[in-house]
Amino acid sequence: MSTQQPKPFEYPIRVGWADCDPELIAFTGRIPNFALEAIDAWWQSHMGLDWYALNIDRNIGTPFVHLSLDFSSPVTPRHTLICTVELTRLGTKSIQYRVCGYQGGTLCFEGKFVSVFVVAKVLESREPPADLLALLSPLVVEE
Amino acid sequence: MSTQQPKPFEYPIRVGWADCDPELIAFTGRIPNFALEAIDAWWQSHMGLDWYALNIDRNIGTPFVHLSLDFSSPVTPRHTLICTVELTRLGTKSIQYRVCGYQGGTLCFEGKFVSVFVVAKVLESREPPADLLALLSPLVVEE
Amino acid sequence: MSTQQPKPFEYPIRVGWADCDPELIAFTGRIPNFALEAIDAWWQSHMGLDWYALNIDRNIGTPFVHLSLDFSSPVTPRHTLICTVELTRLGTKSIQYRVCGYQGGTLCFEGKFVSVFVVAKVLESREPPADLLALLSPLVVEE
Amino acid sequence: MSTQQPKPFEYPIRVGWADCDPELIAFTGRIPNFALEAIDAWWQSHMGLDWYALNIDRNIGTPFVHLSLDFSSPVTPRHTLICTVELTRLGTKSIQYRVCGYQGGTLCFEGKFVSVFVVAKVLESREPPADLLALLSPLVVEE
Repeated sequence: MSTQQPKPFEYPIRVGWADCDPELIAFTGRIPNFALEAIDAWWQSHMGLDWYALNIDRNIGTPFVHLSLDFSSPVTPRHTLICTVELTRLGTKSIQYRVCGYQGGTLCFEGKFVSVFVVAKVLESREPPADLLALLSPLVVEE
Repeated sequence: MSTQQPKPFEYPIRVGWADCDPELIAFTGRIPNFALEAIDAWWQSHMGLDWYALNIDRNIGTPFVHLSLDFSSPVTPRHTLICTVELTRLGTKSIQYRVCGYQGGTLCFEGKFVSVFVVAKVLESREPPADLLALLSPLVVEE
Repeated sequence: MSTQQPKPFEYPIRVGWADCDPELIAFTGRIPNFALEAIDAWWQSHMGLDWYALNIDRNIGTPFVHLSLDFSSPVTPRHTLICTVELTRLGTKSIQYRVCGYQGGTLCFEGKFVSVFVVAKVLESREPPADLLALLSPLVVEE
Repeated sequence: MSTQQPKPFEYPIRVGWADCDPELIAFTGRIPNFALEAIDAWWQSHMGLDWYALNIDRNIGTPFVHLSLDFSSPVTPRHTLICTVELTRLGTKSIQYRVCGYQGGTLCFEGKFVSVFVVAKVLESREPPADLLALLSPLVVEE
């Protein structure tokens, strides 16, 4: 019996002049920001609330404890950047994402991002609440 | 016979309001940028030219192929951020750095950054020139 | 005889966690960047080339000599930010835009941006070429 | 009888690769951020608390209602950027600054920034408290 992976969430980003450095490509430091924006949009799309609402309305934060990125092709303004976001692990206190960036069908970068759940106002570790857990659990795909 | 490691290069960064998010800590996406600025300053200090001069005056670029960061303590405006930069590997075509960030004596993050040498105008792989190699080689420390 | 102004170009921007400061609103320094991104998108939409293509493919730059912004309501992630862009002056060597930002129907900011045409590689003043002038001229609206 | 203006506060900023666009100069959108960082540092130096401490420890915010900038010379990594900050107006509810940026002795930009005092948690207008007023008042220079 095969389990079919759902098609990953796709988030398009306009890459522009502001993102580029004198090498005529998006500056390295912009790439993690693209990926983080895509994860923020994933929350909005899949959980019904973005990080801002999660933090302010629910008092839950998800600070990052790890991120890693491999860059395989430069990002430029010549194409829209399509970021895919997948949930690759869900622990009792942490969550892990894979974010890939594509331009014109070419993989530009692949990244792993790990964050933990905290009580926002005090930055203390906590488990995600039942309603979010119920939404998150079915979304986990193979790492 | 002991070999003594040189004290790592220290680069101070003022963390301010502009860097902080609603969780009252420096936004995750700012941290890679702090580390990259520290590496740029390391070039200026150790090689006598920063990435801008390296690119424009010498036609050499060092695009990144990998970065990874582990975050252990939040970065805030309460302390200066001290970034240490060390050269941990020097290949024929690539270079690897370790960057650690400290505030008030506490380690906030540790990162690994790998870039490759290219002909800047065409982004084609190349070896570093002899004069830079002579400066870089003695600086390599244990990974 | 009345001349009807065309409906201004609208460019939507997703405001997220990354844009917000500890006051829970988009940081002041982000607003000019939102407006500049909207002008870059206006070029792409109306001229058929964005600043990146204008600079690299046509060797024309448009560095800014002035910008001013009045802020009337905070920008937050609660609504999409709609930026309108209008061409309000076209001189022989300069160009002026009005950019307004709206969220949920409320004006958040209004700005004036003035840039000059230059030969990109040398940053020397020049007039816009005939083909761009022909596209730009009919787009000028009342200041 | 002449009144001597005090020498303006000077805040040095390292301009680097990360700040530059494909035109090989600091991107326009970076300049307001340089100026805002300088004003934040001015608070720390003259008031004994930066915007972060002002907001969190004193529950006072200073959101901006206006900013304008004139650019006269490009900013590049070739020189340190020296930002001068002066207090040019102090109203019962607002405060105005002049920020000038210099590189190698050349004026690169001059800006005017106006912000209002608010109760931070609710963004409601307020007058500055007596202790801050006492520190601010003697610092006002001619506009």
